[in-house]
Amino acid sequence: MADAAVRTKKPATSKRTPAGGAPTAPHTAAEASDPRIDVARVTDLLLGTWGETRREAREMIKNPAFWRIEGQPMAEHRERVLTQLHLLAEHGGSRRALPEEYGGQNNNGANLAGFMELVLADPSLQIKSGVQWGLFGSAVFQLGTKKHHDAWLRGIMDLSIPGAFAMTETGHGSDVAAIGTTATYDPETEEFVIHTPFRGAWKDYLGNAALHGRTATVFAQLITGGVNYGVHCFYVPLRDESGEFLSGVGGEDDGVKGGLNGIDNGRLHFDQVRIPRFNLLDRYGQVAADGTYSSDIPSPGRRFFTMLGALVQGRVSLDGAATTGTALALHIALTYANQRRQFDSGAGTEEVVLLDYGKHQRRLLPLLAQNYAQFFANDELLRKFDGVFSGRADTTDEREDLETLAAALKPLSTWNALDTIQEAREACGGSGFLAENRMVGLHHDLDVYVTFEGDNNVLLQLVGKRLLSDYATQFKGKDAAALVGFAARQTAGKLFHGAGLRQLGQTVADLGSTARSVELGLREDQQHDLLAGRVQQMVADVAAALRPASRLSPAEAAALFNSHQVELIEAARAHAELLQWEAFTDGVNGIGDDGTRQVLTWLRDLFGLHLIEKHLAWYLINGRLSTQRAASVSRYIDRLAARLRPHAQDLVDAYGFAPEHVRAPIASGAERARQDEAREYHAALAASGEAPVSEKSLKKASHAVG
Amino acid sequence: MADAAVRTKKPATSKRTPAGGAPTAPHTAAEASDPRIDVARVTDLLLGTWGETRREAREMIKNPAFWRIEGQPMAEHRERVLTQLHLLAEHGGSRRALPEEYGGQNNNGANLAGFMELVLADPSLQIKSGVQWGLFGSAVFQLGTKKHHDAWLRGIMDLSIPGAFAMTETGHGSDVAAIGTTATYDPETEEFVIHTPFRGAWKDYLGNAALHGRTATVFAQLITGGVNYGVHCFYVPLRDESGEFLSGVGGEDDGVKGGLNGIDNGRLHFDQVRIPRFNLLDRYGQVAADGTYSSDIPSPGRRFFTMLGALVQGRVSLDGAATTGTALALHIALTYANQRRQFDSGAGTEEVVLLDYGKHQRRLLPLLAQNYAQFFANDELLRKFDGVFSGRADTTDEREDLETLAAALKPLSTWNALDTIQEAREACGGSGFLAENRMVGLHHDLDVYVTFEGDNNVLLQLVGKRLLSDYATQFKGKDAAALVGFAARQTAGKLFHGAGLRQLGQTVADLGSTARSVELGLREDQQHDLLAGRVQQMVADVAAALRPASRLSPAEAAALFNSHQVELIEAARAHAELLQWEAFTDGVNGIGDDGTRQVLTWLRDLFGLHLIEKHLAWYLINGRLSTQRAASVSRYIDRLAARLRPHAQDLVDAYGFAPEHVRAPIASGAERARQDEAREYHAALAASGEAPVSEKSLKKASHAVG
Repeated sequence: MADAAVRTKKPATSKRTPAGGAPTAPHTAAEASDPRIDVARVTDLLLGTWGETRREAREMIKNPAFWRIEGQPMAEHRERVLTQLHLLAEHGGSRRALPEEYGGQNNNGANLAGFMELVLADPSLQIKSGVQWGLFGSAVFQLGTKKHHDAWLRGIMDLSIPGAFAMTETGHGSDVAAIGTTATYDPETEEFVIHTPFRGAWKDYLGNAALHGRTATVFAQLITGGVNYGVHCFYVPLRDESGEFLSGVGGEDDGVKGGLNGIDNGRLHFDQVRIPRFNLLDRYGQVAADGTYSSDIPSPGRRFFTMLGALVQGRVSLDGAATTGTALALHIALTYANQRRQFDSGAGTEEVVLLDYGKHQRRLLPLLAQNYAQFFANDELLRKFDGVFSGRADTTDEREDLETLAAALKPLSTWNALDTIQEAREACGGSGFLAENRMVGLHHDLDVYVTFEGDNNVLLQLVGKRLLSDYATQFKGKDAAALVGFAARQTAGKLFHGAGLRQLGQTVADLGSTARSVELGLREDQQHDLLAGRVQQMVADVAAALRPASRLSPAEAAALFNSHQVELIEAARAHAELLQWEAFTDGVNGIGDDGTRQVLTWLRDLFGLHLIEKHLAWYLINGRLSTQRAASVSRYIDRLAARLRPHAQDLVDAYGFAPEHVRAPIASGAERARQDEAREYHAALAASGEAPVSEKSLKKASHAVG
Repeated sequence: MADAAVRTKKPATSKRTPAGGAPTAPHTAAEASDPRIDVARVTDLLLGTWGETRREAREMIKNPAFWRIEGQPMAEHRERVLTQLHLLAEHGGSRRALPEEYGGQNNNGANLAGFMELVLADPSLQIKSGVQWGLFGSAVFQLGTKKHHDAWLRGIMDLSIPGAFAMTETGHGSDVAAIGTTATYDPETEEFVIHTPFRGAWKDYLGNAALHGRTATVFAQLITGGVNYGVHCFYVPLRDESGEFLSGVGGEDDGVKGGLNGIDNGRLHFDQVRIPRFNLLDRYGQVAADGTYSSDIPSPGRRFFTMLGALVQGRVSLDGAATTGTALALHIALTYANQRRQFDSGAGTEEVVLLDYGKHQRRLLPLLAQNYAQFFANDELLRKFDGVFSGRADTTDEREDLETLAAALKPLSTWNALDTIQEAREACGGSGFLAENRMVGLHHDLDVYVTFEGDNNVLLQLVGKRLLSDYATQFKGKDAAALVGFAARQTAGKLFHGAGLRQLGQTVADLGSTARSVELGLREDQQHDLLAGRVQQMVADVAAALRPASRLSPAEAAALFNSHQVELIEAARAHAELLQWEAFTDGVNGIGDDGTRQVLTWLRDLFGLHLIEKHLAWYLINGRLSTQRAASVSRYIDRLAARLRPHAQDLVDAYGFAPEHVRAPIASGAERARQDEAREYHAALAASGEAPVSEKSLKKASHAVG
């Protein structure tokens, strides 16, 4: 029902003033003789497995109380977002993930699906919610045990305990293992002493730290009996009821940021702050009253990664939010491009609609295809996440696959978000730069998504190491063991469907779709061969280059690895692109409706060819494409773009955004109305007989007479 | 002197803690056995022809009154920037361009050089100055005649007449010829009636329009005696002394923007507003008291482009400001990358300095090379501009060359600014997202540079049309005339040095530098052949594709042109890249000092190879590079990057920024100080004998005992 409401409110974009001699395709699918997508069905597909929850969340944020106010000063914006968090908790938005016994719904997939949509209201709301429930709350839930849950989960859920997630330090971000904060156990008092030994060990960039956090989950080196057992997480009260820091706790405001200024990021430091032994979140490591340390996971490294892995949901959530934010920018830019006219074509007709320009199709439509791929990939990721966190499929292998998948997809979707939002804003010219049209705000807010919750390059390097070790496992040989030893120690795994990294070189399930795209040059199986073959080759090349590492000194081996860091990251990116392409393809192949499947197959082809074009030099150098074939890739893309042009409005309408989600005046139909007014003015003037003649026509006339 | 002061104040980055087993090159040129640049000499080179003026401007903006306050609310920011403009006028910063008789210095090059530097203080200051003096003031000066100069120039200069430049309309941005505002002459009263006939014809996005403008130079269709003589510029009072709109004038605030919020952009509309005949800025077109129109330029099209061309300085200025803003971001990110450490290398030594990572070198150093190229190219552009506007070399051809050059360089430098600032900010992780570290603010403010003063894609298309017509002139044949007729009508031209588009295929002056870069794979002349050959081939390909246009209907011809729009824009981009490369090469070849020339030759090679790598697929498809040669390009780049790594700090120090220009805490040396503190803490702890042992070492020990 919500969905129907959405589409009845959209601007009437299918009414079109015909322009004789228009240089390209029709503007809407209705005008074209083409097949056409079933918009409502595609909305279902894009909203995915937890579409119901996403629709609920979208319905909730139609309330203007949740909307970002552009240009609001930081202090007011922070208070507004805090109020929104309370409102969200009242709406039950914070309870989906928790177990039933704490008033929750124990529905992990739905929980993240609902949170992702908040990006449409205000990304600060999305991220501050993420801090409170996804990071701070999850740390208590995932790293704590029943006693902690009983003590704090309800307060966290209803926001009576607002908290910060204190992991990153000024001196150490991505390298969490090296943080400086210490938690030293004192058996005399059965307390941990939380301490910041130097300035670089201040906790930094923490949401809720500057103002609202009463408590924090603090990551620190656990020291007991003179031994450092590595990083563990502690529940540390920060402020009293009046908001004043407790004794020994101090901090600073991070001040204005590039975006997300509705969140009170700040710094914290601790001067011998004592907390009860109880406050160690001790699911993976316990300290007895006498100070004896114990853990079910004997390896310190594996224990550390297990704790960190429990917090993977941040990345899953960012992947989805970035995808949805990108969709909003594309909805705005393509709706505008389908109405705005500029310059006559030289054919003496009306001015040309922006989306009829070859360049405009080329700059936006491949990004639309990419965004569709991200929706399908994110749904796969979300299902994987739900499987693990619901306990239905919670094995070590599944957890590692989930982490690898999140580490692969989050970088691509967040970078794509920035690139796409920027292109969308530029495609709208000066009006794209006005805050009211949303795109600049989205770019500002989503900027940090590429470096937080795991810096994108660091994440891709992790994926690359996983690919190397899988490769070594696959081709066990004389040097493979050494190779595995050098790269990260991870077992071979199964990603999306528990079926392993899709066997390299294996073709995807062919559901008779081959014929549909053959005329556009590269069929589905050829696209897959090219994309998958590239991953395989790149991984094999890096593995071969690193093979001598086992015979080198550690310093030399490190230097060798460093000299191939760029290629390893590129291999991981290629792998992530393949995952997105496969998810899109699986999604398309499951569609029953012919028109929808046809149009989305074109869109998938555009995505595949866009990827192949991006890496065309690689395909040529590695003999995967002839120069003739390579030369035709760009032409195929142009033809696909022209073919998809009439479907552009349907495809962005299928995002299912209501006017309350879009809110950008340039996507409201105002542009079309202004053009109609101008046209009527000129027509009336011409009819009145009082229109001035142009100097040019005058010159021509006088020339004819002369 | 200013320069010496700059460098004595810079953080002492040459002190370095040696790290045994560091995986890459030395951190400073002083440590390397390499040649080394003469930093002061390179600063001179970068500051270029009007270095003196740029140093004066930099000295002036050391005054904190000129600095942007991060996070300042819009209303206060607007007032602050207005105050800065008054301060600037008091410092004489507004008088450099004007003729001596109005208290000016008649020094056009110096004028723009000085304005460009304001971007370091606050881009809003740079652009609001540009609105007042570069657009509004220039319109009066360039499009008006002596009577207008006498009446208004002094007031414009001293800011007693703040004004807006009212060209763009809501309905028409890049397509100025199609604006809707009318100026109808009434011979009865000898007045022009300025009128906005419909909403789409509201003037929009105008700096100074929302609040501060008392007057505007309004572009409107000049109608007299029932004939429309096309777009002309009129001087139209807007507000009274108290800031209230005059009768018939109305407007709106554009509100919050993606950046530049120190400028009061707004909209204006006119309801039959009468102004004296005197107020037509009549240098290129006059209306006599009886309404008779006259002009020295009989062709309406050429007259229009002449008027618009008089305003080219905005693009020249943006090219320079974008280049300087980019330099600031690179200075910050590379200084930080040279201090910040993260992750140990696996070699058991100290954590690795970011700039030692292969990926970090790869992501920043080619952008540094590109920025250097932009400095050299901008100085050439500035000299060209000065030649034309001083009258020393003011011919139609020179003006057209200047416009083409500006239209080619401004898009590249402004896009590069956004890409580079973004990469710089990401390279600094979370601290890069804090406003205090400058990069996010630079990105926000410079965002609109890519779409205003000529949308980048529209500008490149103009350049592409010029290339086509030059090509047709060069190869006059049966179809060439038709080709020229279809593309923009421009004569063949001379760009940088009045020597023509450097003859395609011609090698650059070889001053014995060939041998220097041969070991890195592609010598100077090979780089030039590849870059220039690509331009020639792309232009020839588009020309061939468009040849049938002459035999087609206007609508079909327009469709054909549209289907090659993307390639035409790419050809123009290739041309602009070649111009940058040539400017860099000419600059390098003129250097006397061996060390400086050597290092800058590597940097130029890195730029050239970076361009070739970007277009590698094209070179392969077109048979310009063998696959073997192509495969080695990336390796050459890696080696050049590693070779340049020790020089990175020298190269960004050579920008000559003082701490008052940089202002980013992360580039202040604070990071190094924090590391020193942490290192001392750990050393003292170890010395005390009370340092906890690690669990790992304990396990090893127990294993050994067991």
